[in-house]
Amino acid sequence: MEHSFLSYLRGRCRSLPQVAVGIGDDAAVIDAAVTDAAGSPAERQLVACTDQIIDGVDFVSAEHSLADVGYKSVAINLSDIAAMGATPTSALVTLALPDKNATRIAGEVYEGIFEIAREFQIAIAGGDLSTYNGPLSVSVTLLGDVPAGAAWLRSGAQEGDAILVSGFVGGSLRGRHLRPQPRIDLATKLRELVDVHAAIDISDGLSLDLDRLCASSHVGAELSVETIPIHDDAIVMAQDSGRTPWEHAWSDGEDFELIFTLSQADADRILEADLGVELTQIGSVVGRTGLWKRKAGKFTRLSPQGYSH
Amino acid sequence: MEHSFLSYLRGRCRSLPQVAVGIGDDAAVIDAAVTDAAGSPAERQLVACTDQIIDGVDFVSAEHSLADVGYKSVAINLSDIAAMGATPTSALVTLALPDKNATRIAGEVYEGIFEIAREFQIAIAGGDLSTYNGPLSVSVTLLGDVPAGAAWLRSGAQEGDAILVSGFVGGSLRGRHLRPQPRIDLATKLRELVDVHAAIDISDGLSLDLDRLCASSHVGAELSVETIPIHDDAIVMAQDSGRTPWEHAWSDGEDFELIFTLSQADADRILEADLGVELTQIGSVVGRTGLWKRKAGKFTRLSPQGYSH
Repeated sequence: MEHSFLSYLRGRCRSLPQVAVGIGDDAAVIDAAVTDAAGSPAERQLVACTDQIIDGVDFVSAEHSLADVGYKSVAINLSDIAAMGATPTSALVTLALPDKNATRIAGEVYEGIFEIAREFQIAIAGGDLSTYNGPLSVSVTLLGDVPAGAAWLRSGAQEGDAILVSGFVGGSLRGRHLRPQPRIDLATKLRELVDVHAAIDISDGLSLDLDRLCASSHVGAELSVETIPIHDDAIVMAQDSGRTPWEHAWSDGEDFELIFTLSQADADRILEADLGVELTQIGSVVGRTGLWKRKAGKFTRLSPQGYSH
Repeated sequence: MEHSFLSYLRGRCRSLPQVAVGIGDDAAVIDAAVTDAAGSPAERQLVACTDQIIDGVDFVSAEHSLADVGYKSVAINLSDIAAMGATPTSALVTLALPDKNATRIAGEVYEGIFEIAREFQIAIAGGDLSTYNGPLSVSVTLLGDVPAGAAWLRSGAQEGDAILVSGFVGGSLRGRHLRPQPRIDLATKLRELVDVHAAIDISDGLSLDLDRLCASSHVGAELSVETIPIHDDAIVMAQDSGRTPWEHAWSDGEDFELIFTLSQADADRILEADLGVELTQIGSVVGRTGLWKRKAGKFTRLSPQGYSH
């Protein structure tokens, strides 16, 4: 890589208070929040996740802008941080760049990364750049923190919990998947208002990810399938996909909405509130494992579907 | 990736006390140490770094074992953690695997990763796996912590400091570069015994990395060039490289030894002690920027050399 690009990058990575030492040393030094929302000292735990996206596998660079690729590489990780109920602080960004036009490509990818970093007030605290004979690959590690012991795990769902989903799902491949809106703000508000028992983000499909949450919690879900909030994109896609809008909503991936469970009383409270994003109860947690549809008092087992890696 | 490999991986990633939630949720949850060595509560900062190595660029898979590649991918990051004077806690490992033989390759790479993780008591807290039409790439993010405000930066060198280097340098390409020994133990002992002002690890060459440390600190170095601890490998390589052993020691990269500065009084104390690895004073920090050789009272400017990305 050209040294001048690294200097440029360093200049563009803004200083944020949570990063004591950023790009330019052997490693970044990051402060975890040491006070809670009320300003009191609070014990925090570090939350960390990583996801890579590769040209030809997870996106096709010939078909959309590299800024979108950069944006998405961070957004999908922020979505994981939101699903833990955590607050993001900083990201480490690693690019493997095709030898040809490496600097131009890096610059365009970083435009999208800087945009989402600004939007969510996270710092680019470090990273790595290589050029090689291969396709563009963007690998992001996202760091954040949660109150100690209070991360939202997949394994915390309890019998009787309400199951809620944010936003509208299905058909994200029409374009939304390039600019997903990670539910960080929603997660912050939920943490203030209610006690979320379990959460997961929808990366591989509503039903597949809900099934994963249920399996981790050793429970099942009884769904009112007609309540699933179908996105307009699913309706449009159904016009020539040979599948119904509901099937798209059930199994399409890359929605990056949150599925979460909480007590029915807590659910009733937030379903009446305005948290800035639509919330829908799609069912309840039951003891019997698996996904179930109740219709006229009869239960039918549903098959989870989605993108399996 | 085969689901069975992911299950295998999850089973192999041992539980360590610092990881509250490991592989299998949306993100890992990691405890920073909340007590110091004496058992008192201590405020810690998070330290994070990331480095990727790619087949054909940073190693040649046809020439050495994939376990070595895995070992090295973690070792080079641990070396950065050591250079911050930090304690490593956990790693996130991302593999981009050639479509052909992906599972076998991943298994072999992970053998080396598990080995070094055991050796340094770090947890594999998460990661990502993809297969694609490209060369093997291993990207590791290493997390650790330091006492708040006490990370060893490149920028902390002070006029009059002694400049020390660990181990012996030069000729690492004869094979040592595949199994570098990150100086984590040394860093821990130094932190207990003395006040290190600045540190960097040798990844691109003794002189080049020392020059970076000096530039960050706005100082220079006056070197007794004959004291540079030359590795036997440098002597062997010099037999048919057309360069002297000293030139190899001066400019070869991938030694992964530490260069650090501290007061002359502190230096004198540890130069007499046994910290488990050879320590050599190679010079002193001076106000005048640049690297300088003193001989018979005269100063000659030295040119930093090494591997420039």
